[in-house]
Amino acid sequence: MQDIFYPKSVAVVGVSAKPDNLGRNIMLNLVDFGFDGIVYPVGPKGGAITTRRIYKSVIDIPDHVDLAVILVPARFVPDVLEECGQKGVKRAIIETAGFREYSESGREIEDRVVEVAKKYDIRFIGPNCIGAINMDNGFCVPFPRLTPFIRKGEVSIISQSGGVGLSIMNHMAAEGIGLNKFVSVGNMLNIDAEELLEYLIKDEGTKIIFIYLESIRDGRKLMDLAKLSPKPILVFKSNIGQLGQNIAASHTASLSSDDRVVDAAFQQCGITRIHDVTSLSEYMKTLRLPRLKDKRLAIISRSGGHAIVAADACEITGFQLAEFPESFIKEIEKHFRASVIKLTNPLDLGDLFDLDVYYRIVEETLTQENVDGVVFLHTSVARTEHDPTKSLVGRLEKLSKEYNKPVVVYVSANSEEVSQLRNSFDFPIFTHIVEMFRALKLGFDHSRMIETVDRHEVAPTFVVDKKRVRELIEMAGSENRDLLLDEAIEVLHCYGIPAIPGKKATNAKESQAAAEELGYPVAMKVIAKELSHKSDVGGVQLNLRDGKAVESAYKDMEAKIKKSYPDVSIDGVMVQPMAVGGRELILGARQDEQFGSVILVGLGGIFVEIFEQANMRIAPISRTEAQAMIEELNGAQILMGARGEKPFDIDSVVDAVLHLSQLMMDFPEIQEFDINPLRIFHEGDGCSALDARIIL
Amino acid sequence: MQDIFYPKSVAVVGVSAKPDNLGRNIMLNLVDFGFDGIVYPVGPKGGAITTRRIYKSVIDIPDHVDLAVILVPARFVPDVLEECGQKGVKRAIIETAGFREYSESGREIEDRVVEVAKKYDIRFIGPNCIGAINMDNGFCVPFPRLTPFIRKGEVSIISQSGGVGLSIMNHMAAEGIGLNKFVSVGNMLNIDAEELLEYLIKDEGTKIIFIYLESIRDGRKLMDLAKLSPKPILVFKSNIGQLGQNIAASHTASLSSDDRVVDAAFQQCGITRIHDVTSLSEYMKTLRLPRLKDKRLAIISRSGGHAIVAADACEITGFQLAEFPESFIKEIEKHFRASVIKLTNPLDLGDLFDLDVYYRIVEETLTQENVDGVVFLHTSVARTEHDPTKSLVGRLEKLSKEYNKPVVVYVSANSEEVSQLRNSFDFPIFTHIVEMFRALKLGFDHSRMIETVDRHEVAPTFVVDKKRVRELIEMAGSENRDLLLDEAIEVLHCYGIPAIPGKKATNAKESQAAAEELGYPVAMKVIAKELSHKSDVGGVQLNLRDGKAVESAYKDMEAKIKKSYPDVSIDGVMVQPMAVGGRELILGARQDEQFGSVILVGLGGIFVEIFEQANMRIAPISRTEAQAMIEELNGAQILMGARGEKPFDIDSVVDAVLHLSQLMMDFPEIQEFDINPLRIFHEGDGCSALDARIIL
Repeated sequence: MQDIFYPKSVAVVGVSAKPDNLGRNIMLNLVDFGFDGIVYPVGPKGGAITTRRIYKSVIDIPDHVDLAVILVPARFVPDVLEECGQKGVKRAIIETAGFREYSESGREIEDRVVEVAKKYDIRFIGPNCIGAINMDNGFCVPFPRLTPFIRKGEVSIISQSGGVGLSIMNHMAAEGIGLNKFVSVGNMLNIDAEELLEYLIKDEGTKIIFIYLESIRDGRKLMDLAKLSPKPILVFKSNIGQLGQNIAASHTASLSSDDRVVDAAFQQCGITRIHDVTSLSEYMKTLRLPRLKDKRLAIISRSGGHAIVAADACEITGFQLAEFPESFIKEIEKHFRASVIKLTNPLDLGDLFDLDVYYRIVEETLTQENVDGVVFLHTSVARTEHDPTKSLVGRLEKLSKEYNKPVVVYVSANSEEVSQLRNSFDFPIFTHIVEMFRALKLGFDHSRMIETVDRHEVAPTFVVDKKRVRELIEMAGSENRDLLLDEAIEVLHCYGIPAIPGKKATNAKESQAAAEELGYPVAMKVIAKELSHKSDVGGVQLNLRDGKAVESAYKDMEAKIKKSYPDVSIDGVMVQPMAVGGRELILGARQDEQFGSVILVGLGGIFVEIFEQANMRIAPISRTEAQAMIEELNGAQILMGARGEKPFDIDSVVDAVLHLSQLMMDFPEIQEFDINPLRIFHEGDGCSALDARIIL
Repeated sequence: MQDIFYPKSVAVVGVSAKPDNLGRNIMLNLVDFGFDGIVYPVGPKGGAITTRRIYKSVIDIPDHVDLAVILVPARFVPDVLEECGQKGVKRAIIETAGFREYSESGREIEDRVVEVAKKYDIRFIGPNCIGAINMDNGFCVPFPRLTPFIRKGEVSIISQSGGVGLSIMNHMAAEGIGLNKFVSVGNMLNIDAEELLEYLIKDEGTKIIFIYLESIRDGRKLMDLAKLSPKPILVFKSNIGQLGQNIAASHTASLSSDDRVVDAAFQQCGITRIHDVTSLSEYMKTLRLPRLKDKRLAIISRSGGHAIVAADACEITGFQLAEFPESFIKEIEKHFRASVIKLTNPLDLGDLFDLDVYYRIVEETLTQENVDGVVFLHTSVARTEHDPTKSLVGRLEKLSKEYNKPVVVYVSANSEEVSQLRNSFDFPIFTHIVEMFRALKLGFDHSRMIETVDRHEVAPTFVVDKKRVRELIEMAGSENRDLLLDEAIEVLHCYGIPAIPGKKATNAKESQAAAEELGYPVAMKVIAKELSHKSDVGGVQLNLRDGKAVESAYKDMEAKIKKSYPDVSIDGVMVQPMAVGGRELILGARQDEQFGSVILVGLGGIFVEIFEQANMRIAPISRTEAQAMIEELNGAQILMGARGEKPFDIDSVVDAVLHLSQLMMDFPEIQEFDINPLRIFHEGDGCSALDARIIL
């Protein structure tokens, strides 16, 4: 991968001298960005461009070529690549579009490209991309004509869309955030986003990684990489709704995945998900500052109004204002001309106009042990202050590093002055107070999240009866059906997930006997191969209080089902005692194409409609993750013992989740597993599945 | 007020030739902004400045002066104002700080200022402010030295902080949003924010009003003005937490109010509350476009990636993509070179490079009846496109006006080009896709809110027994106590709020008799002047099932209270039947210093802790408002009949709210009124207060 970003010699294939030639743009970009290697223009018509010879083929180049950037019509790409192979070029960036995202014949060309690459062992990026930028060596090969518009910095970008990538870089430049490497991946025929991520995680110049994705190829690999990354990874994953799907399919041939699964997976592996560019730049700014050790801030402001807005934002985002000790106040009092202002936190600089004094006050504040970070709100009011302001910001940057505490700088000034400041430092300058505190919060939460990501905690393994489950699944599989209710409940038993004791009965009399044994009242649920939604056809009868009721329920059920589904044969019923007390949860699992087994927990009963939310995690799940899944549920207070009620047995649900996770890892052939409801009782009384459905 | 913003002659008092003189800045600002009137510098030392004579006193000015801008040390302000009075100057802007916000002696000076102004009938803004700007006539008197940094536009600003006001204007300038008028109000000793709002609502040049407030002086007046304003009013109200209060008191002498009341009041009168500068600029942009009639959008994009991000954002913000009819697709197909792209909505412009064709496609899209607005996502990729892009944006602005549908333009370009575009048009240019859709949503919701604000619906008036309530309150008042439980329940009866039937009893025997009459089980609650929190001292006994239980409960209660509070005399108990079924609500009211009577409703019982939220409205409340109060409760689904349960009797609660509103308007001496719980039954069965507490 190093050869992709740090080639010594580059052939740009598709160059002509015409002013609207895109290959020409690539060549000129390399020149303007100061690429430190050698560039060879290649184009079928030959000729010259800016006093350089255009070679007719890669083969004609007299020297070795590390990398070819290819932008010729799709139908010529296989041949160009063939020539590269013959020439011994081992890396390529294919920017040409018009492949599988476009047409069937495009797909065929793609197949040929893959074949040639395999033959010559060529690794390549694209096709259908705008190339890459490396600010470290001036390697800049996107086909739009670019002038050096962004500073070298610490953020690297992988983007599945060239247009989105460019606009993000424009925003970064406007916000003064420097770029390290950029790569647009396109159709990912050979080198994919995961591989590039792996490279950037190790890349020395990259400190923060941002990824724009329209689809996730290998969710597992992404998670594994992210879990072990010491660098923050920010991902903007689009293509999440119905409306964008058509366009995504034709844009980068992307399929969308269940967005809630993506959310869960990202959270689990410590990826920060970005939903808009505003918070992206907030993250990029805050993550470049020293980490906040705790939440105690000092706010120092030149404007009283800004101080108030900041104090509000501080409170709303959950930060605290450090208390200034008397001795400290005495010390800074010396700087003030007259004692016109109460010295407190926020500190209003009031009638102090000496920017050098601001610096000294910030430094003195940083020495305070109970100050974890300083928020400095500056207003540049006069033209004569431009230079002192610039020098102040530079000195504050150094202070921040020296004390290893964030000095978060807000500047109120006209946009010209702000731009100049941002062009002068690779140090974040905020221009929105509320957003600055949100950024601080994002950064703080990010460190906390990174700390809590289960990098090493392993999912527990329980002793289970895997063999019996294998039999049940194979039996159902051989009959080409899903599992029956009694089988599903047996699976629960085999994997140690508590279920209400039930008895199978195949006629009214047996049902009565079962009910007598279990004790009234009972519930009765039909068992039938062809019926997966029992209650729709009267297949669930609750609260049967005596033998007579059981008998008539059985007959009633039989009659109703015969009437609605004459062809369905009833295999019997499951008789269960009615569960008393407790609250209802929903526990489920299913297979996701990108991420594999996903486990979900939600509140059931009346709360389903109020909270409409379930928490998911990708299996295998560790105990900490399972606990978090339940504790983070909206409305989890209901389970914790709200209003003096005894708390419910959350541990038993954690166990059930862990066992279910093991089951799903053992049997990926289970497509869907629903336990609805899972009744949870008070602490110590466990939980119990009342119904279960397994779809293969 | 016209004379404040449109004076013909202005005296700037406090000018000297020293380069750091702030009065000098004011004078030069007037010159640089091209003020269309005459300016007279005034300063005690006289002399000259930029070839103009500095008058030693306002009195020396040979002509009439409409307005004086005063920036001299606080102690001289009364005398300067006196001279203004003698000279016949009727308007002033006092920028000097150091009054009541600073010290006791400052307050005394303030009193003298008020006195002089009254004597000469001078209306003034300030003190402790940075003055005003009117882009319509170049009137620009803030004391920081400003160069013309912002375009004339349609947004006017009232700001309680000069620093915040300036930073907001910097943001507007950066986002290309033009300014009409700006005024910093400071301590509002004479002209206050409400009066200025009244002026701006009528002011022709102002189309959108933004207010930054640290305190609300007269909440009622603000609401009344806003309700009748045809112009959008956006308010950033800071000073909402604990942390900012100290600094706010010393900054503009502001007291904070209950922030939830502010939220409720704003919503009720159609003020849009702003919480950060990002959404402020989103509002300012979206509100300048033609109104969206409905939610059907067309997205036209040069980049496939942008189209996907836009489609996602469209879906998330609840907009729809209009379906393009076959005939329309055929029509636009003609513009495409080759049919490389599926023509759909979002429309990917793909390999079309002719910006003139973009224009024609947008126009054709606007003619579609089922398209309410067009989102146009542009990428300016090459330097050669700068001019065509500029021309395209200008033409799109015209199209938007012509078709009276919003054409929302996003431009991806480097910040220099974006600035140039923004400087060229007073037409919003967005640079963030997700934020653009949020802005559209804000604008759409804003129109909807404006439509639903009860501008004219009057709160209903019921026949009530006001006289009896007056007697009860006066009696309690004369005894310097709050109302007793039985009195509070009588108040409910007098105002037609249903309460559970109860009987007062003064000994165990009477309690038993009352219980027999009401029917078991009963509840028993102590009535005692000195006890307002009954349950803390065992003063509430529930579920008493027979006479014996009632007797022992009475005695037990008596004993417990005697033990804990030997001095409290028990006036008796209230015996009530136990209410069966239903759900619990909390209904309350209290007086707010800024807004008057506030009514609140929340869910009670177990839901209190889950939702932790009550809805408030300022009395008097209309029926529509009362309904909205309940329907908008978090968790209101519980009352609507979730999961097939019968819905609860929401109408009865609406009635209770309306009656309570009338009561609070009739008796502002009631400080707090709590009905907790109010039990609500199924539809048709009404509601019933089980307990009530009135604090005077």
